[in-house]
Amino acid sequence: MSEGSSPMIPPEHAASNQRVNGDRLWASLMDLAAIGGTPKGGVHRLALTDLDRQARDLFISWAKDAGCTISIDPIGNIFARRPGRNNALPPVLTGSHIDTQPPGGKFDGCYGVMAGLEVLRSLNELKIETEAPLEVVVWTNEEGSRFPPCMMGSGVYIGRFDLAETLEGTDQDGTSVGEALNAIGYAGKEALGDRPLAAYFEAHIEQGPVLEAEEKTIGVVLGALGQKWFEVSFTGVEAHAGPTPMDRRQDALIGAAEVIAAVNATALAHQPYGCGTVGWLTLGPNSRNVIPGQVNFSIDLRHLEASILDEMVAEAMAAVDAAAKKHRLQVTIKPTADFPPLSFAPQMVDKVRQGAVAHGLSHMEIVSGAGHDAIFLAEKAPAAMIFVPCENGISHNEIENADPKDLEAGCNVLLFAMLAAAGVAHQEAAQ
Amino acid sequence: MSEGSSPMIPPEHAASNQRVNGDRLWASLMDLAAIGGTPKGGVHRLALTDLDRQARDLFISWAKDAGCTISIDPIGNIFARRPGRNNALPPVLTGSHIDTQPPGGKFDGCYGVMAGLEVLRSLNELKIETEAPLEVVVWTNEEGSRFPPCMMGSGVYIGRFDLAETLEGTDQDGTSVGEALNAIGYAGKEALGDRPLAAYFEAHIEQGPVLEAEEKTIGVVLGALGQKWFEVSFTGVEAHAGPTPMDRRQDALIGAAEVIAAVNATALAHQPYGCGTVGWLTLGPNSRNVIPGQVNFSIDLRHLEASILDEMVAEAMAAVDAAAKKHRLQVTIKPTADFPPLSFAPQMVDKVRQGAVAHGLSHMEIVSGAGHDAIFLAEKAPAAMIFVPCENGISHNEIENADPKDLEAGCNVLLFAMLAAAGVAHQEAAQ
Repeated sequence: MSEGSSPMIPPEHAASNQRVNGDRLWASLMDLAAIGGTPKGGVHRLALTDLDRQARDLFISWAKDAGCTISIDPIGNIFARRPGRNNALPPVLTGSHIDTQPPGGKFDGCYGVMAGLEVLRSLNELKIETEAPLEVVVWTNEEGSRFPPCMMGSGVYIGRFDLAETLEGTDQDGTSVGEALNAIGYAGKEALGDRPLAAYFEAHIEQGPVLEAEEKTIGVVLGALGQKWFEVSFTGVEAHAGPTPMDRRQDALIGAAEVIAAVNATALAHQPYGCGTVGWLTLGPNSRNVIPGQVNFSIDLRHLEASILDEMVAEAMAAVDAAAKKHRLQVTIKPTADFPPLSFAPQMVDKVRQGAVAHGLSHMEIVSGAGHDAIFLAEKAPAAMIFVPCENGISHNEIENADPKDLEAGCNVLLFAMLAAAGVAHQEAAQ
Repeated sequence: MSEGSSPMIPPEHAASNQRVNGDRLWASLMDLAAIGGTPKGGVHRLALTDLDRQARDLFISWAKDAGCTISIDPIGNIFARRPGRNNALPPVLTGSHIDTQPPGGKFDGCYGVMAGLEVLRSLNELKIETEAPLEVVVWTNEEGSRFPPCMMGSGVYIGRFDLAETLEGTDQDGTSVGEALNAIGYAGKEALGDRPLAAYFEAHIEQGPVLEAEEKTIGVVLGALGQKWFEVSFTGVEAHAGPTPMDRRQDALIGAAEVIAAVNATALAHQPYGCGTVGWLTLGPNSRNVIPGQVNFSIDLRHLEASILDEMVAEAMAAVDAAAKKHRLQVTIKPTADFPPLSFAPQMVDKVRQGAVAHGLSHMEIVSGAGHDAIFLAEKAPAAMIFVPCENGISHNEIENADPKDLEAGCNVLLFAMLAAAGVAHQEAAQ
């Protein structure tokens, strides 16, 4: 196999009897969850806090115990490297994040990092040397809860966000990202993402209800929905609900209600994949007997195909215009987010699918509706994701939960896919 | 004319050349508005504050100057009495309130009290003695802004509210109505409403846009819309907007949007008079990319006919049920207000109409969509109201405004109606 090309072995060569240790994976998840653990069983561990430092320190000690070398880049992303036979080859990278929502659950992000670590630990026990090196990454501040934006570490890594600008961003107390990184000792020197990567895999709980409802263990993630967000402001005329006849009203909330219904309708008209949500709405003056004069609300539209997403936007905007005209409202529309749809690399998606098949796991194709570091990494490397079910589809919540067997299954698929991407150089003793 | 019956004179006998002094009326309104006046031209004078005391003291000094005797009842309602020829007859009462919204305008309530005072002053100048006595009343705390409920003074007067219970009600600082009344020296001894009244008239700005739009000076108020208010709570399931497919959502806001549209539709279907408003709505968790799991909102339905109001309620409740079923929402519905429609006394409404005709004023029949002390008084006495336009229909606002000519016109109609109801005993010199 020549250097510089990604080493590949046919899937049938990647033995499905190479398995991770599910109990150890679960125990590590629980140990990690104790740092910032909440009474309700969740985790409250915001990015770049001292709790985040403790979690990072724990990850690094585990990774070193597994024989890894550690490097840290200027935005605090941590790379734990397990050498391959040919260390001139680009590494196969996996990982996710260990910061949480305030509060969040034990699995969102943490699962992807602990699954990567468990792959390395298992390879050590299996005495498998890979052709290419493997790395497990902890991306800084995926949640964006303390410091916006979301997916900060991976965004800086791929060059989507400017490092200097990002370091100047502050939390509500005025502490900057740079200050917080220095305070916890995680402002590193490693170069940002200018080296080639053979592949990027990310294992994650689904954060949705589909796998559980369909009774599938593995979600083979084809890609991510494109997202277009808007903020709409309707200004009518605030007036008494009693003395103002219907035909003289300029009721901003009636206008908003019509748009809310239209956002729902356009999503339903573009199945599968179409999503339309109004999740945020404020009302002025918000008094029972006053006709609302001011309504501001969000529109969140998602689809896997860019052209259909554009159609959905057009339909929603037409509803905004129609409601404004009908109810004589002033309107402003502000785009607030725009992520194009993403397709993961077919050859890496295939490795995930083959892993599920090899392990005899029920699986289905699925798309990611939410943002993940993998979506940024896909710009830099052939990427794919592995979803496992979470209980009742609930995430970003202290009661977030997952079945240890599902987590183990997803980790076995990750092991399979990483071996397939990195190539097996040498295995001392078959299990 | 026998004692004990309400003295009546045919309308043609009430000379339309008996006129009030519009300049004096305006000057008194402006003097009153200076107590608690705001930089934007409004008034901030909450019930039973020291500013309210100053306004009450000013009214009493003016009423005494006009030859009135003063009595005050235990809820602080002030009655200024101008004797008639036959003081055994029930009095003809007029008035309104001088407390304001925080902040409110110069005319809401104050106009009715100042118009009543101006009628008495003009009768003095016209040297007219009425058959029955006349009284001008200041009702305590009509706005209900500091101490709920609205229309407190008139409600206690007619026995709708229990006096002892009402005196125990507190403001946000824990001060009780009773303490506040004592603090400003307005806890009186006069008996509550157990004496007969010949009539009750109340002049008021419309607080709506109809008279101005129809270019009419006088609104002959036929009655008041019945009101039924509800609070609806929809509980769905809060979930991520991305990973949750449309068919698995339980979106409380979509349900609410459908009900908002239905409330609007039922009001439009029951014109004239039908009003339907959702003025208050709260959303949980109110985050742009989270499907709303909880929405609470108000429904305010109004109509002049009780049977149609019941139909509107049935239609709105059917929409609530349908939305709950369709989106799998838990629902609670709590009635929060129920006022039956009210028709004012036809013979008193006629006197208002005849007054407008006698003075050659453009006029139209109208209904009150809002609450007024007159609505409570109508249970106690034959009652009617006179509306005059307010600028752009705006009220409960510092920019509330009215044309001095319209205010004068309404006061002339009040003079006409009160004379018609009380009877003219003696007039020294015709004007």
